[in-house]
Amino acid sequence: MEVLVPFSTTDPKSRLSEVLTPGERLAFAHAMLADVVDAVSAGGGDPHVLATAPLDSGVSDVKGSPDTGDAPDANSVPVVVDDRPLTTAVNDVLRNGTPQAGITGIDSSPTAVVMADLALATPEVIGRFLDADDDVVIAPGRGGGTNALVVRHPEFRVDYHGASYLDHLRISDDIGASVSVFDSHRLASDVDTPTDLVEVVVHTDGRAADWLREAGFEIDRSDGRVDVARP
Amino acid sequence: MEVLVPFSTTDPKSRLSEVLTPGERLAFAHAMLADVVDAVSAGGGDPHVLATAPLDSGVSDVKGSPDTGDAPDANSVPVVVDDRPLTTAVNDVLRNGTPQAGITGIDSSPTAVVMADLALATPEVIGRFLDADDDVVIAPGRGGGTNALVVRHPEFRVDYHGASYLDHLRISDDIGASVSVFDSHRLASDVDTPTDLVEVVVHTDGRAADWLREAGFEIDRSDGRVDVARP
Repeated sequence: MEVLVPFSTTDPKSRLSEVLTPGERLAFAHAMLADVVDAVSAGGGDPHVLATAPLDSGVSDVKGSPDTGDAPDANSVPVVVDDRPLTTAVNDVLRNGTPQAGITGIDSSPTAVVMADLALATPEVIGRFLDADDDVVIAPGRGGGTNALVVRHPEFRVDYHGASYLDHLRISDDIGASVSVFDSHRLASDVDTPTDLVEVVVHTDGRAADWLREAGFEIDRSDGRVDVARP
Repeated sequence: MEVLVPFSTTDPKSRLSEVLTPGERLAFAHAMLADVVDAVSAGGGDPHVLATAPLDSGVSDVKGSPDTGDAPDANSVPVVVDDRPLTTAVNDVLRNGTPQAGITGIDSSPTAVVMADLALATPEVIGRFLDADDDVVIAPGRGGGTNALVVRHPEFRVDYHGASYLDHLRISDDIGASVSVFDSHRLASDVDTPTDLVEVVVHTDGRAADWLREAGFEIDRSDGRVDVARP
């Protein structure tokens, strides 16, 4: 199945600015993207990054970026560049496909959308997710968001603004699509804020976890809870 | 399967004190407990509340408590009272059972432990969880915690302090127990902080969600994200 992985190259992961510099945020976002692309491929999907600009833009220009080696290899992962807002760009691919990238659109084949900051995604969970067989399969994110979608109904369109989980349920109902909710901690855990970093270190050993460790983050159990921080 | 549902009657849900009075926190905690007990029963488990004091204690004494009707009926749900710390109390039941409550201990039958603030638990997810067939099955909570456990190995003991998820993996390994991790957003979502309340309203329609709505909480989409608040 074609799997879109939307990625914003502009000031990514801004809610991590308390703990990471702009360059670090970009490098960490690339590390998470690489993990997601790997999990999608190994889970049986055919990943296409849907980026707001070419993937190598910015990384080497940003002062303080500790590592540019984590971006997925542009030769091995197709990148579709579209600088329009997320909802518009995704709906355009769902409706019309992107012939130059080999995506035909949901009229002719199901398409999935998996967010680029799902650092906890594994091949196993992606495989189960892509195999769920309703017209629309939604993996909710915390806070009413939608972290991953499988779309098999030609009339379905995304709306990522606000409570997108509830909106996607409503849209599915409006068009008579069968819908299922995919219950996964791994797919619910988008990494946005400093408190999300502990999930990456506790539950993964991919490039994002390596990046955090190399950047000096450690598990801190000192107050009886678990946190990650740079000592 | 016998399912322990630990519940602290003393200042429950203290991290909600920004948005709820002490009486409201106790009533809300009781509503969540009732939802969890219902989900365990309907999911095929045999729930036993492991409480630090009798369940009706406190509710009617607390000024400002809006509702005492949500406590599970003491006549229908067995309550084991043990005022020792959580880890000690759970390990005592695992090791020795609680004959007066009909719990035999893990020497003779598997036992599960499901936290009382898993307001998103459904019969379906509890059923799948109890059916997972390893010696130890762990449903992680956010932040390295352990939200639910199935224990089938007689030497397993819990340790809820700190990064209990990692500790429970290590303990399983030390005793040669087979272990699986149960990947569920619903079971990972313990309700501790004000930002957790949105999960209850978005994903459930049980007593906890009703309680929040009756207490005036509404979904707020005003800033493009989803929150719940009392307007």
